Amino acid sequence: MQQMAKSEFKKKADRRGPRNRPQAQGRQGTPRSHDIQSRTKTPVLAPKKRDGLFLFGRHAVEAALKNPARECVRLVGLEKALKASGLGALRSGVPVEIVNDEQVLRSAVPSDSPHQGILLEVRPLPGQDIMDLEPRPNQKNIILMLDQVTDPHNVGACLRSAAALGARALITQDRNSPTESGVLARAAAGGLETLPWLRAANLSQALDTLKELGYWHVGLDGHTDTEVGSLSMGDNVVIVMGSEGKGLRPLVRKHCDAIAKIPMTGKVESLNVSNAAAIALYEMGKA
Amino acid sequence: MQQMAKSEFKKKADRRGPRNRPQAQGRQGTPRSHDIQSRTKTPVLAPKKRDGLFLFGRHAVEAALKNPARECVRLVGLEKALKASGLGALRSGVPVEIVNDEQVLRSAVPSDSPHQGILLEVRPLPGQDIMDLEPRPNQKNIILMLDQVTDPHNVGACLRSAAALGARALITQDRNSPTESGVLARAAAGGLETLPWLRAANLSQALDTLKELGYWHVGLDGHTDTEVGSLSMGDNVVIVMGSEGKGLRPLVRKHCDAIAKIPMTGKVESLNVSNAAAIALYEMGKA
Repeated sequence: MQQMAKSEFKKKADRRGPRNRPQAQGRQGTPRSHDIQSRTKTPVLAPKKRDGLFLFGRHAVEAALKNPARECVRLVGLEKALKASGLGALRSGVPVEIVNDEQVLRSAVPSDSPHQGILLEVRPLPGQDIMDLEPRPNQKNIILMLDQVTDPHNVGACLRSAAALGARALITQDRNSPTESGVLARAAAGGLETLPWLRAANLSQALDTLKELGYWHVGLDGHTDTEVGSLSMGDNVVIVMGSEGKGLRPLVRKHCDAIAKIPMTGKVESLNVSNAAAIALYEMGKA
Repeated sequence: MQQMAKSEFKKKADRRGPRNRPQAQGRQGTPRSHDIQSRTKTPVLAPKKRDGLFLFGRHAVEAALKNPARECVRLVGLEKALKASGLGALRSGVPVEIVNDEQVLRSAVPSDSPHQGILLEVRPLPGQDIMDLEPRPNQKNIILMLDQVTDPHNVGACLRSAAALGARALITQDRNSPTESGVLARAAAGGLETLPWLRAANLSQALDTLKELGYWHVGLDGHTDTEVGSLSMGDNVVIVMGSEGKGLRPLVRKHCDAIAKIPMTGKVESLNVSNAAAIALYEMGKA
């Protein structure tokens, strides 16, 4: 009996161990998880830091390495890709780990995302102070506020557009909004590192504070006759946008000095939130 | 001994069989494949038609069912989701197939895409004739042309914005551009069904034809002092945009009457192509 039990244990170990499973390349004996995705049976690359996350995509990784405020834990990737990229030289002191197993790298990024063989583990950026957003004289000071936009692609795209169009900052709520992630950073194409992103516990209170600092607030909503291009709000403006499904929440809307729409003449009712944000940032940023 | 062996067999069956694996819902014991994606071990939902494709996402599916030009092959989905959606009633004659295995549905969509339990198999839309784009009097006639933009999310987002902002059509090259797909249709949020999308063998020739029809052509490019908002090009305009990496190809650029840029004051060099398209469509569409 004891022998059988041993043998059974051995078989079990074989099935779970690293050596005898040619169909699971590079498997390193990680414990089975109870996730329903069979994908998780392949070896997994996990962050070293408790709050670590993996960035990928050339723009996102390069921008993070160039951002002095960003704590970079390690560069991980295919030897060939890392060498060809030259990214290792961008910042000294960041350990470089060669992982020549595409499946292992793949485990740390969503399956549709092209990671180009290079991942950068980073820790989230430090929080920002709303009082630092005091309007600067003789320039446009435009802030984009997103009220419960949940898709990280959209938030990332908004960061990118806001950074490209010269906005001062992005503000989201600290709950019901995505946090920093590889997907978000890739969509932001560097904007995550260059544009201040503030998370406010309460957007209405944040709007009150910004009003005291000298900002006017315009909420974007289709249910109005006012077009965003007809507004004259001066140099310091907060553009407030709701989620695609629900729009602005009543209390946030109440805190806006004006409600305006992007004129739409077509058959599809709504613009993607990042495209609407781009138009509003462009229009409000005009001299 | 025999008893032990049986008992062991049973344990094995428990681990690999379909019935006692709460962590691998719906797994049907299909043979292991040697593909590196362990995902492909699950059963696969394939189109019935040779040129069939699966649409998903509420907006995309609903718009397709409402588009008389769209050939719909079948609605496939979870019984509960189909019933709750009411989509089956939108068009008569479309067979409804209940597939209550989430993994099977999942096999027909990219793993990051939320399919909401409903897929619509369709055949691609019929081609469109460029001569149908003759400018209509007393209105803006804006056409968006994409020169080798390859990302289906971007092309889909451009379709959405062009449809929402009242453009006449989208034109892409027939090679080096995405074709219709579920990802593209979802990003287009219905725009794929409402906005004419033409594929031209040669974009320069297409621009020649559109010139004869009465259109002016503006190419978007950062390397110019002319801002898109300073142009006066009349009511009939083709906006030509290059890919994010390469920009406009020389011959296509040569066919433009003007080259203009979206003024960018920020630290990130470029806008996402769909966000830049949205701004240009908005600006050129102004009365």
